[in-house]
Amino acid sequence: MAPSFEAYEQAAASQPINVHQAKINGTHAIDSIVLDESERHDLVLRVFRCLIADLCEQFGGGHPGGAMTYFNRDRFILSNGHTCLFQYTFLHLVGCKDMTVDQLKSYHSDRTDSICPGHPEIENEGIELTTGPLGQGVGNAVGLAVATKQLAATYNKPDYALVDNMTWCMIGDACLQEGVALEAIQLAGHWKLNNLAIIYDNNQITCDGSVDMVCTEDINAKMRACGWNVIDIFDGISNINGITQALIEARTSDRPTFINIRTIIGVGSAVAGQAKAHGAAFGADDVASIKKHFCMNPEEHFVIPDSVYDFFREARSRGEKYEVTWAVLVDSYTRKYPQEGAEFQLRVRGQMPQDWNKFIPSKENLPTTPTASRKSAGIICNPLAENMKNFMVGTADLSPSVNMSFKNQVDFQNPELKTSCGLNGNYAGRYIHYGIREHAMAAIANGLAAFNKGTFLPVTSTFFMFYLYAAPGIRMGALQGLQQIHIATHDSIGTGEDGPTHQPIELAALYRAMPNLLYFRPCDTEEVAGAFIAALNASSTPSMLSLSRQNLTQYPQYSSRDGVQKGAYVFIEQEEADVTLIGVGSELGFAVQTKDVLERNHGIKARVVSFPCQRLFDQQSKEYKQSVLRSKSKAPIVVIEAYAVNGHERYADAAISMSSFGKSLPGADAYKFFGYEPLVMAEKIKDLVEEVRRDGIECLRGDFRDLNGTLRFGAEH
Amino acid sequence: MAPSFEAYEQAAASQPINVHQAKINGTHAIDSIVLDESERHDLVLRVFRCLIADLCEQFGGGHPGGAMTYFNRDRFILSNGHTCLFQYTFLHLVGCKDMTVDQLKSYHSDRTDSICPGHPEIENEGIELTTGPLGQGVGNAVGLAVATKQLAATYNKPDYALVDNMTWCMIGDACLQEGVALEAIQLAGHWKLNNLAIIYDNNQITCDGSVDMVCTEDINAKMRACGWNVIDIFDGISNINGITQALIEARTSDRPTFINIRTIIGVGSAVAGQAKAHGAAFGADDVASIKKHFCMNPEEHFVIPDSVYDFFREARSRGEKYEVTWAVLVDSYTRKYPQEGAEFQLRVRGQMPQDWNKFIPSKENLPTTPTASRKSAGIICNPLAENMKNFMVGTADLSPSVNMSFKNQVDFQNPELKTSCGLNGNYAGRYIHYGIREHAMAAIANGLAAFNKGTFLPVTSTFFMFYLYAAPGIRMGALQGLQQIHIATHDSIGTGEDGPTHQPIELAALYRAMPNLLYFRPCDTEEVAGAFIAALNASSTPSMLSLSRQNLTQYPQYSSRDGVQKGAYVFIEQEEADVTLIGVGSELGFAVQTKDVLERNHGIKARVVSFPCQRLFDQQSKEYKQSVLRSKSKAPIVVIEAYAVNGHERYADAAISMSSFGKSLPGADAYKFFGYEPLVMAEKIKDLVEEVRRDGIECLRGDFRDLNGTLRFGAEH
Repeated sequence: MAPSFEAYEQAAASQPINVHQAKINGTHAIDSIVLDESERHDLVLRVFRCLIADLCEQFGGGHPGGAMTYFNRDRFILSNGHTCLFQYTFLHLVGCKDMTVDQLKSYHSDRTDSICPGHPEIENEGIELTTGPLGQGVGNAVGLAVATKQLAATYNKPDYALVDNMTWCMIGDACLQEGVALEAIQLAGHWKLNNLAIIYDNNQITCDGSVDMVCTEDINAKMRACGWNVIDIFDGISNINGITQALIEARTSDRPTFINIRTIIGVGSAVAGQAKAHGAAFGADDVASIKKHFCMNPEEHFVIPDSVYDFFREARSRGEKYEVTWAVLVDSYTRKYPQEGAEFQLRVRGQMPQDWNKFIPSKENLPTTPTASRKSAGIICNPLAENMKNFMVGTADLSPSVNMSFKNQVDFQNPELKTSCGLNGNYAGRYIHYGIREHAMAAIANGLAAFNKGTFLPVTSTFFMFYLYAAPGIRMGALQGLQQIHIATHDSIGTGEDGPTHQPIELAALYRAMPNLLYFRPCDTEEVAGAFIAALNASSTPSMLSLSRQNLTQYPQYSSRDGVQKGAYVFIEQEEADVTLIGVGSELGFAVQTKDVLERNHGIKARVVSFPCQRLFDQQSKEYKQSVLRSKSKAPIVVIEAYAVNGHERYADAAISMSSFGKSLPGADAYKFFGYEPLVMAEKIKDLVEEVRRDGIECLRGDFRDLNGTLRFGAEH
Repeated sequence: MAPSFEAYEQAAASQPINVHQAKINGTHAIDSIVLDESERHDLVLRVFRCLIADLCEQFGGGHPGGAMTYFNRDRFILSNGHTCLFQYTFLHLVGCKDMTVDQLKSYHSDRTDSICPGHPEIENEGIELTTGPLGQGVGNAVGLAVATKQLAATYNKPDYALVDNMTWCMIGDACLQEGVALEAIQLAGHWKLNNLAIIYDNNQITCDGSVDMVCTEDINAKMRACGWNVIDIFDGISNINGITQALIEARTSDRPTFINIRTIIGVGSAVAGQAKAHGAAFGADDVASIKKHFCMNPEEHFVIPDSVYDFFREARSRGEKYEVTWAVLVDSYTRKYPQEGAEFQLRVRGQMPQDWNKFIPSKENLPTTPTASRKSAGIICNPLAENMKNFMVGTADLSPSVNMSFKNQVDFQNPELKTSCGLNGNYAGRYIHYGIREHAMAAIANGLAAFNKGTFLPVTSTFFMFYLYAAPGIRMGALQGLQQIHIATHDSIGTGEDGPTHQPIELAALYRAMPNLLYFRPCDTEEVAGAFIAALNASSTPSMLSLSRQNLTQYPQYSSRDGVQKGAYVFIEQEEADVTLIGVGSELGFAVQTKDVLERNHGIKARVVSFPCQRLFDQQSKEYKQSVLRSKSKAPIVVIEAYAVNGHERYADAAISMSSFGKSLPGADAYKFFGYEPLVMAEKIKDLVEEVRRDGIECLRGDFRDLNGTLRFGAEH
């Protein structure tokens, strides 16, 4: 049972906030008084709190309650991103050049040039990662801490601590309720990430009221059970020394640290400690009373005395000193360890070795017998992972299925860990066992990728269906333009016996619609190679490869890695075709077989287009697109894919697609059950071709045909 | 730190499994020997384990390592659904009529009539809920336990315990890593659901190896911190009495119970305790040695002695007795409490009061001034929730935003809870504060809906964007045909200042593609009423209402609740129209405004179609669809929606849609920023109309137009 809110209030009351009231009477004179350190802390806090109140007041909303390119800097993540005004104000005070008072005032305004959006965004100086969807930031912070550990274990030498930064993550009450954070907390404890501290702004208030309405667990005991060091601060309002000591202690802990700081939301206001302080401005009267409470002049707004600027200027100059010292250290290191030094500097610049292409096998060296595309992904990715130090490959407990294990693989693990199956790991390892935690995997991968652009290339892997669990994290990677590769195996109903809970139908529609993500369904190993090439070239875009469990025919005579770069390409040409068949991924083979049946049994000429990536195709010229689709001809275009068709209708007139959930049958039987048999498909396509011959291609306009139609929204509704 | 695997082995070894070896020599004679209770337990276990080994062996795969209509029955959920052969075999032994040995053999076969799919499916007798995606079952079980508590608090009287069943949930190691389960565990502890027990099959093995590779937390301490009663069983292989006692203790606990049972995966086989025992068959030799280990005849297969059937027959007859006794109890109750009794029986039958329509205000009583559709949802839903006892309304901490609080609302809470903001709750409450746990909310809602079809109608609510967190649970609801209503507010970029992390772009594509889900975007209060009517009529389908944060113009002269039932309908007709504008949800108003600009500024005649639900439209006749879209005319069809267009292309030739993420601006400014201004849109549509006049409607085929084109996959990639 967490301490009650009253207990916090009493703790806070026992250390009055206005200890300096006698000495400092109003804001007019504060700059002329010499303050000791504790008084300066107090002043900074008072100014800061009044400034936030002013900023919230001016736009009448927001979340009032609640330094920068140096590689080895400590990272700060605001997981409760809605309190970002706090962070923006800090950035102003420490002197971020673009973060002017004018910019602070742009928060929640209609200014399109604002660098103070409603949640922190990675594009802006001083923001390590975009946060907002709750819980994500905890996973991100774990990823940042892994990055530090891994670089340190790889490059640090005696006397050369090139990378030893801390990651600080501030969270609110909500983050401790979100599953993604709970998963990441388990991993951080397991990995003994002693370079990570969570600062818990424990104000016990969320939108609905007091947290004890929905959570009465003993959070400290829980964090200890998860392997964390716990530090309590009972008076988070004025016990600055206690907080400072906790931060210092966190730096020397042997495990991750959880600093549980009891605070009061909207402190000093009339709604202090209430849910009302969470998401609305205080009102002018209350802002005035807040200022009185903090011995500031209620008539003045946005007041920042010089002494407060001076306070932060010191911090900034300390930071500049660190940066210079570090550059000297790296120079010295590079002289002593030229090879490691060069490699390290390349990674600091975020560059991959230029010759990465040599690790991708040429077409002649690819398998020609039927091969599952998840196996193809291993063939292409394993040599890259083995040789490219920036690859951090991981899986949500599906190593035997996803084929991402590579030669000489070492796991990322706490080297002191004892496991019952033996340990092949240490902090320099580049293979991450995430456990059955898909969502945390995605959030941690975002942290890895955001540590420094290009220093790490995270590869995640699980069954495609479970990328639905991971989706909020995948989205955040796309939103932030983080290069990553997601290996999604067991796609489509071909995954078979596991049944409808494991057979994705609608999930491709999500990832195809998601901005700034490249979703690939390659049809064979050559196309898998093409997808990896595109993914490696997409330095500001994550990619997802959707791969088959089952063996797929290889088409060395038709498939093309270059074609993949254009999203879609003509696979088998046919002049004067009666119909164009679009085949996708593991269903491309059905298109080829159906083409043969159409010609042999029905005298219908068909051409085949392979369509691994919609997004890349959309970027091609109108001419290229028309040449691939022959959309100016009178031949109907039919897409064959065992997914919901949503998203493919823009290229096709009709589809053999899925509109119900799947069925537990062996993969080949599941395909048959849902009509993916060349003879059956050819029959339906023949009917369509004959209708078009009779009524003209116009008959299909506004009447998109689901040729598996009876199954569409069938018995279910 | 969890006990090591060796510790389990030692514990198991200390109680040898073959105590009866001297007495029972081979299977031939076992039926002729009189066994005491402990010997019978031992026999049942041995037969059971050998049967599972045989079943796995016949199809060479599966998960070898690891009973039905009585309303007040205990519920059993297999959260680690991949071990379902275990459950199917139990169902056979207790006499489920369809679950023959022949059916057991159909597991993983190509038989389309199999009732033994790769994961348990709700359609089949004896299966309470479909499980498989890990962690979901824990949330489902919490939902079932909430259902029991709520019904008990509502209907039970002294001497009339109409509902007092337990919910038992078996989990594997993975479920304790999945965030959805960790969220649900917090809630169960908070709610003190003492009618819930988790049985943890703690074998410390997952696909990748031993669990201590990815999880070294002290799970017992963690569960205690979350408010659970913890019972340890160190020898889960043979300590049957200990397990039985634990189950009995769970029934009388004052909080939920976690039974931590150390087991050995694939016990008796050569791969016992190894990851290899997880997902592949043992092999014929190993099956034979398993049988020898368990004193069974290796030459015989699928052996079930009569004494084993007898053992379970007793259990079955006990169950039949319970059912009869309960029916008598309900009769007596209904005589004593006629009103409650009638209501209870209605709910047992899963029926809603027939006159629910009377709680939905008629059109004349709806607001005519601009109203946010999230507010409209409150106007429609609140009277339903107040008056319909089956409504269980909940929110993921967004009560002030989603407007689902209703008159005389009582929260679902442990009545002994003390909260710092006061308590308005008890177990009879029908408003659930889920906390910031969207995923658990969805999984718990599935449990509520599955307790007994129709007894509860769960309503969930949060921002639309956070239904991405909940998506795996929403999918399971759709897959199982569970009627639910999901209130998704703050949809589209109109949500404003919170910025791109909170502005859904691609999420509608997911829910529109998801089978058996009705996704609605109503344009005003009348359409919200229509969406609720459709949702209430859809007894085997969940619905999601996507609603605006911002005020929307009301169109009493055009909008129609009956139109909503058809998915789309003509909003403003126009003979000889040059263009059809499809408006959707909060962007419908833009279509109406743009129509006016087109006519006034460009002399272009436009008609407007409102399109709240794709799925319902797809079910209409071809004639109706053509009459709405006028797809046989030469007028282009343009859809206006601030989402990724994916899924709408089948009805339109062009779109004003979103293909990038959003931007942190006030809602109205965000719309403007992305081109949603009638003057701007009219200009683009005019160009399109002129092109079609010049080149014919054919020019649009295979060339779907994103009229916001420059933004599509723009700067990002």
